[in-house]
This record gives sequence, structure tokens and C-alpha cells, in this order.
Amino acid sequence: MTYLFQRLVIAGVGLIGGSLGLAARKRGLIAEVVGFGRTEANLKVALERGLIDSYTFDPAEAAAGADLFLLAVPVAATGWVMEQFIPHLEPGCIVTDAGSVKEQVVTLLEQLLPPTLACVGAHPIAGTEHAGAGAAFASLFEGQLCILTPTAATDQTALARVRCLWEGVGMRVEEMDMRVHDQVLARVSHLPHMIAFSVMNAMLAKPVPGVDSLAYSGSAFNDLTRVAASPVEMWRDICVENRAALLSAVTEFEAALAQLKTYIATGDGDALADALSQAQTERQRLTRIRERS
Amino acid sequence: MTYLFQRLVIAGVGLIGGSLGLAARKRGLIAEVVGFGRTEANLKVALERGLIDSYTFDPAEAAAGADLFLLAVPVAATGWVMEQFIPHLEPGCIVTDAGSVKEQVVTLLEQLLPPTLACVGAHPIAGTEHAGAGAAFASLFEGQLCILTPTAATDQTALARVRCLWEGVGMRVEEMDMRVHDQVLARVSHLPHMIAFSVMNAMLAKPVPGVDSLAYSGSAFNDLTRVAASPVEMWRDICVENRAALLSAVTEFEAALAQLKTYIATGDGDALADALSQAQTERQRLTRIRERS
Repeated sequence: MTYLFQRLVIAGVGLIGGSLGLAARKRGLIAEVVGFGRTEANLKVALERGLIDSYTFDPAEAAAGADLFLLAVPVAATGWVMEQFIPHLEPGCIVTDAGSVKEQVVTLLEQLLPPTLACVGAHPIAGTEHAGAGAAFASLFEGQLCILTPTAATDQTALARVRCLWEGVGMRVEEMDMRVHDQVLARVSHLPHMIAFSVMNAMLAKPVPGVDSLAYSGSAFNDLTRVAASPVEMWRDICVENRAALLSAVTEFEAALAQLKTYIATGDGDALADALSQAQTERQRLTRIRERS
Repeated sequence: MTYLFQRLVIAGVGLIGGSLGLAARKRGLIAEVVGFGRTEANLKVALERGLIDSYTFDPAEAAAGADLFLLAVPVAATGWVMEQFIPHLEPGCIVTDAGSVKEQVVTLLEQLLPPTLACVGAHPIAGTEHAGAGAAFASLFEGQLCILTPTAATDQTALARVRCLWEGVGMRVEEMDMRVHDQVLARVSHLPHMIAFSVMNAMLAKPVPGVDSLAYSGSAFNDLTRVAASPVEMWRDICVENRAALLSAVTEFEAALAQLKTYIATGDGDALADALSQAQTERQRLTRIRERS
């Protein structure tokens, strides 16, 4: 049997790392998957659920013979994890990641890694609001999009092999400049998460006296706030690491909301209807995009 | 066979009105359901799909023998529709509605209706982003909540009979002060819709140059913006009619978002994590509420 990689180390066996391990093992893409993490309870779950073949807390033991290293930790932990592994990773090992922010992570990796280790930035756009090895499942990536963010320094063979990995678990793969990636994701992912968290916080800050408003919420509220259950540490890191692009996206959203607010405050029903209609048309375009993909 | 009502006139045979007609007919709650509306194409769909027994554009013909009149039109059309029907509705007929805004609608109905016609404000909290008779389905209301907003003037028998109607199609029914209703719904429904519309408008106003960001959106964005496909006229009316409560809710949300923005801008990861964690806990509480209901 020919494997795409012989030995994969997954640093962070959570929803993304664990689902990749499971999917890659099921599809026979990788001979051996080793888990590395902070919490033994989570790694035990990963082992029991077949996401990994084994786990260790020793970077040297994990790295021995590894030809692929996947960073699937909160993005701010990148430097700390890599400093532990770099002395032990063998020449030719490809280092890749799954972070939602690319410029800071890839720039840091390219600074840290010696020329013997190739670096390929990747963002599989898949997920749920659930975290940890217990939430992982093999079909998470199927039909979803993975963005690779090569730079001028990226090794083309390593890039092609990482593409094969994500295509191998069912993803469509595209390449994108890492700065463009961060601007796009700020708008389509990071902003929606900040909105969801903020809606919940507003409910807490200003309750309607004597009423638990949440008990009266319907599907719109439920869908809009679903991702407010997402892991705090992960999202804190994404916000801080993608600060500039996210702040721009929030400001643009605030301006759009302020415009509706003005129309409502002045009772300008025609202007309000025009603005809602424009939004509706764009949302219908998204529905068509999703139906095609 | 004993019916709850003999003849129901539905003004506005859309998602809500049409689904009620269908559910009530299927369950044998009402002997005869008559549709009234502006658009014959929609009424034909309603007739073909069995949402109604017949339709007419003549208020006098529709009202003859009716003991229940359901307003299921955009809320701003309330006065216009009632002025056409009031001369023809027979003494004892109960007028109810299904609007997402209660104070303005119920206050207007109580002003317009003669003492021979009872008025019961109702809001079945159910819906999808789709509109019209073609989107109606019999199970729309099952397990969902209906809020009745009686006033000091409300006839208690009429109130009980309207409660039976919504319970009869599978809803849990609660009573609430109409002003409280409007404050709660501004937060849990009207605000989320305004956010969804604004996210789409922000995407249009400030695209990432050269990239169609929507093509890179995942489930968080899709779920958050789903209701931006909702009917424009209906939402224009809700915003204008529930202006004061909605503006408060938007302002409270803006403050919560501005707080996250400050933490992100200053790189205060601890304060940001605390704020996200608080939101996460409240969202987990919502999940538990939904699992119980």
C-alpha cells in the first residue's frame, strides 16, 4: 500500500486535527498518525475514537520519523509549539497548519523553520461550534473548501503534497495570497463570530425586566448565535492575530447597521425597503453559490 | 363534527396565514377557510395546495358568515385591510392577527373595531425565510410558541377560543403584555434580522478587491445571514412599527460589539476572552432551553 505520508504528527487533536486524523486513517492516506497535546483526557478520547494511532507528550518521540507535521492549535500557540518541535523534526518534514488566520502564522513559521523544513500554510474552511476530540468526525471536510496560502518561499513539491492531503479527505483546494485570505475570512467568518458573541452579551447586559428573552427566541436567533458556543481561546487568538482585517470588517458592518438604524429612526420606509432589498438580493446570490458548490 | 370555528377568513395567505389554513383544515378545526389577498396567482397556489377552500377579492363576500378573521398581512397594512372588512364582519366575529409587532397593531385594532367585534392579538413565533402560499406547510407551528397579548379590553371567551386555535395546530401558548412582547421580540427576532441584512450590505459596500468573498463563506456566515432572504415589505413594516424597541435593541448590540472591538484594538486578550466566555455561557444556556422545549 502506498501512503501519501508515512507519519503525521497532529499538534492539537481537536475538532479539525482529530477529524483530519480520522479521515486520513479511514482513507488510507497516512501510515501512522501521532497525537500531541496538552490534555491527556482529550488524547485518550482521540485514541479511543480512532482519530490517532498513538499519542505522546514528548516532542522528540512524536517527531521521530515524521514526514508531516500539522499545527492544529489556537493560532497564538504557534511559536510555543514550534519551538518545542523544531529541534526534533527531521529534514524533509513538511510543516503545515489549519489556522483561520494566515499572514501572522505563515510569516512566523517561515521565520522559525530552518531551510530543511518546508512550510505550507493551509486553512480548511470547515467546522462546527463544538470543540475537542469528542466532536471530530470523518466527513467534516467533504465538499468543503481548503485555502492554501503559499508565499514566494514555498516549496512547490511540499505545496502539491499538502494539496493532495486535503483533496484526499474530500476538500476542494484553492490557493490564495495570505493577506487576501485574512481580509476575506475576517468578513465571512471572524465578523460573524464577533456578531454572535456580541448578541449574547447584549442580551446579558440589557435584559427585559422580568422576562427571560431567550425563552422566546426562534430559529433566526438560534442560527445567528450558534457559533457563540465556539471555543473561547481559539477565537480570542483569531481576533488578536487578525486584528487589522477584523477591525475593518467590524467597522464596515457597523456602518451598514447604522444606515438601517437611521432609516428606521426617521421612519424612511422607502429607503429602508431599498436597503433590505439590496441585502436580500445579495443573500439570494449566496444561496445560488452554495447550491452550485 | 364539531368545529372550533365555522368560517375563517385569512387576509394574506402567505407562509403564516397559509400554513394556519392548511393545519386547521387538516386537523378539522375549522369548517371552511376563505382566502383574501392582493395577488390571484398566490391565492390560486393556496387553493391548489389545499390551504384554503376558496378565495375572493370581495370583502363582503369573504366576511359573510365568518366567525374568525385572521390578519396575516404585513403589519402596516392592518388599517387598510380592516377598513375594508369592518363594515361587513358580522357581530360576534373574532378578529385576530399573526403580526410580529403587537402594541401598534392591537392598539389600532381596538380603536377601529366596533364593540360587536372581539379583538385578540397573537404572534405565532414560527417561520422560515421563505414567503407566500407556496412556502406554507402544515407542521410549521408544531412545538413552537404562540404569544397572545390580551389587554384590559380583551373578551375572555374570544381569548380562550383563539388560544384553542393555536394550541389546535400544535403550538404552546403564552400570554404577555403587548409592550413587553415588542421589547422581547425586538431583541430575539427583529435585531437578528437587521444584523443579517446589514452583514450582506456591508459585503456589498466594501468588497475585497478582486475576490468574491461569498464564495469563501462557511456555515457560520450562511446561518447568520439566512434570514436576510426574508420578505422585504414584511420586515420594513416590522422595523417601522416596532421602531422604539428595535432601536434600543440595536443600540445595546452596538455597545456589546464596540466593547469586543476595543479589546481587539488594544490587544487585551484577557478581557476579550472574558467577554467571549460570558457570551459562550449564555449561548450554552440557550441550547439547554431549546433542548428542554
